[in-house]
Amino acid sequence: MSVIFDAELKKLKSRFMEMGIDTGEQLYQATKAFLDHDVELAKKVLNRDHTLNDEEISLEKRALKLMALQQPLANDFREIISILKASNDLERIGDYTTHIARATVSLNEDHHVVATENEIAKLATIVRQMLEKVMDAYANISEKAAYEVANMDLQIDVIYVSQQKAVLKAMQETPSRIPVFESYLGIIRTLERTGDHIVNLAEWIIYIASGKLVELNPGKADPKLVQKKLKEM
Amino acid sequence: MSVIFDAELKKLKSRFMEMGIDTGEQLYQATKAFLDHDVELAKKVLNRDHTLNDEEISLEKRALKLMALQQPLANDFREIISILKASNDLERIGDYTTHIARATVSLNEDHHVVATENEIAKLATIVRQMLEKVMDAYANISEKAAYEVANMDLQIDVIYVSQQKAVLKAMQETPSRIPVFESYLGIIRTLERTGDHIVNLAEWIIYIASGKLVELNPGKADPKLVQKKLKEM
Repeated sequence: MSVIFDAELKKLKSRFMEMGIDTGEQLYQATKAFLDHDVELAKKVLNRDHTLNDEEISLEKRALKLMALQQPLANDFREIISILKASNDLERIGDYTTHIARATVSLNEDHHVVATENEIAKLATIVRQMLEKVMDAYANISEKAAYEVANMDLQIDVIYVSQQKAVLKAMQETPSRIPVFESYLGIIRTLERTGDHIVNLAEWIIYIASGKLVELNPGKADPKLVQKKLKEM
Repeated sequence: MSVIFDAELKKLKSRFMEMGIDTGEQLYQATKAFLDHDVELAKKVLNRDHTLNDEEISLEKRALKLMALQQPLANDFREIISILKASNDLERIGDYTTHIARATVSLNEDHHVVATENEIAKLATIVRQMLEKVMDAYANISEKAAYEVANMDLQIDVIYVSQQKAVLKAMQETPSRIPVFESYLGIIRTLERTGDHIVNLAEWIIYIASGKLVELNPGKADPKLVQKKLKEM
């Protein structure tokens, strides 16, 4: 029984890692398509839309079956529960990549605004680094790395708030470009939310490592922090 | 041991119901404040911001402790896991109510657009009905009611898509009102996301009742459905 359990748990963990890698790949392709104005690549991202949904459902089923098989020891239990919750965060990130891909397809090529796209490129780079780092932290169950990832989210929140203001101002100055600016706002928001879900992943790593449930989102723990950072700029 | 377990499970379930009621109350107050342009009420909503966060963390802790206490029977196991996942959906809805409240505080009273606010009022009513109905479905573990809730989400998706288009058009026609239109877009989006999370809650009720993990979001199960409905209008 225990041999089966151990083998199944190992499989569950490696499937979760695979889902993390697939999510990172989708995010990379979606943001690349957007920044390169590559509609074909965006369509490919949309065609893989169901993959992460399916992976989440399959992980949930595996996790639930495993817990029905035998009562897991405390450490194993935390791993399984964390995968059950964290797979939901990966799936949400997958949803966001399809938003980005859909915006890429609908954007008219004549209407790009380089300055805003440069800021979006910055955001995308930080978010991708965070996702890579959090999956590494998961692979090594490193609390230290998990905390580092969570702190990176503050950079995202700062760009998010300042770019929202900048784009709204630009909208008022050039109303004919409202649809493209609206797309930019959507993508900026999407990347910010992606950062929040990566912070959730970091929280689950802390839980696996220590059994503690923590709130690591710096903006949530101290709502005034982002405003403070913005004033320092 | 079993007596303690049963008592603790009962407590967990009633705390989850309470969290559902509190979430509904927050949603009611936030949308009411927005539609009545009641900044004071919106500020009250913001002051209770942490309540649902705290309730979620407390539910998670309870659920995890309970499962560590003894291996639950299949039915109980599904109840506990579902609360563990569904509390996250309630907490997200709570996050959205703070977005609505924040938008209410920042909106200038001179700049309201009645037609759009009427559509938002419709959306808010459907979303609140869905949340009430899903908590009833949970209380009675009614699969039938859970499916009915999920189907209501299609009405939301239809208003969401048509209003997004209408507001973008209005933005281009009246650029001076862009900030207020941007707030409306945010609130429309927020209510649509709230609908998605209520559908997740319905999915967990199906899981408790039947052990099946299903995808009930009509727009996700068939991405062309919303477009079809819009063409029929």
